[in-house]
Amino acid sequence: MKLYYSPGACSLADHIALHEAGLSFEHVKVDLETKLISGGMDFTEINPKGYVPALTLDTGETLSENVAILDWIAHRAEALAPSGTLGRARLLEALSYISTEIHKSFKPFFAGAGDEEKAKAEELILKRLGYLAETMQGNFLFGADLTVADCYLFVMLLWAEKNGLDVPAKLVTFRDRMMVRPAVRMAMTHEGLI
Amino acid sequence: MKLYYSPGACSLADHIALHEAGLSFEHVKVDLETKLISGGMDFTEINPKGYVPALTLDTGETLSENVAILDWIAHRAEALAPSGTLGRARLLEALSYISTEIHKSFKPFFAGAGDEEKAKAEELILKRLGYLAETMQGNFLFGADLTVADCYLFVMLLWAEKNGLDVPAKLVTFRDRMMVRPAVRMAMTHEGLI
Repeated sequence: MKLYYSPGACSLADHIALHEAGLSFEHVKVDLETKLISGGMDFTEINPKGYVPALTLDTGETLSENVAILDWIAHRAEALAPSGTLGRARLLEALSYISTEIHKSFKPFFAGAGDEEKAKAEELILKRLGYLAETMQGNFLFGADLTVADCYLFVMLLWAEKNGLDVPAKLVTFRDRMMVRPAVRMAMTHEGLI
Repeated sequence: MKLYYSPGACSLADHIALHEAGLSFEHVKVDLETKLISGGMDFTEINPKGYVPALTLDTGETLSENVAILDWIAHRAEALAPSGTLGRARLLEALSYISTEIHKSFKPFFAGAGDEEKAKAEELILKRLGYLAETMQGNFLFGADLTVADCYLFVMLLWAEKNGLDVPAKLVTFRDRMMVRPAVRMAMTHEGLI
């Protein structure tokens, strides 16, 4: 299994989740500007969409899209999904919310937008993070145990920190709690982030 | 079961999928400006996020996020998901792509953005629809049979048409193929769209 990633991009969530799941995998770094991977190979031959994450399975098939990959990992390691009849649906609800409402709202920060647009994005991101802080069910989004959704939220909080966003105190505590996990440290060290 | 929708919004995908699945449900129209539903009740008491779709199950629990609801429907009617070991992952990959890369890119059209921003969005949307046209495996995204991802793609094509976007011919044919399905006609008629 091969994870295609770019340091600190949303693929970090999958990187952490794969370690939390105890799965063994190779890492392949992608240069998102040139679309080249180590060795000079064209990444768009792996994922024609040209963005990370992508996960090539042992069967040779490649999965793309963060929500799909994180859900796939949670299927391999059931402890990383909330339990109960609606567990899977609640996981997708959280992943989808983080992906469409939070991750996508960071676009002005990456696209070098003007101050006004960034201020609007900041307001939106903080409102949406606020909803997660309010509905958090314990030390993690779904209670006492970490799920793959926490891995994704953690990356959003790193982006918030990097861009000087003043996130709710509860989420700062959550970020600190994540930072000391061996899976997080392993992934961040590998990506050169700590 | 109750589907909270707004006419022509992305909740139309769920509306169609519920009919395709043969499930019985009530419809509740939401005024997205006032956040009120028929009878004057506050919709944010149903979905604190304030947007559609929301689906209240017979247990009284409410699901939000289009990707999660469409996947939930496909779990009730397995024929609406692609088959095979990776079927569910491929469905989420398509739903997530449509949601984050296409749906979200329509924002400038809804937000009353300027022409330059709209032109950029159009270019992006057409590129991303182009990818779906190229990778479409048959009459529908995953081959000969409709899945819930086709319902979502169909709504994106209605939005494209409404905003004068010149989508690939293959997707125009797909849109026409969808338009004659009884489930589509039923949902569109109910929402006052035809």
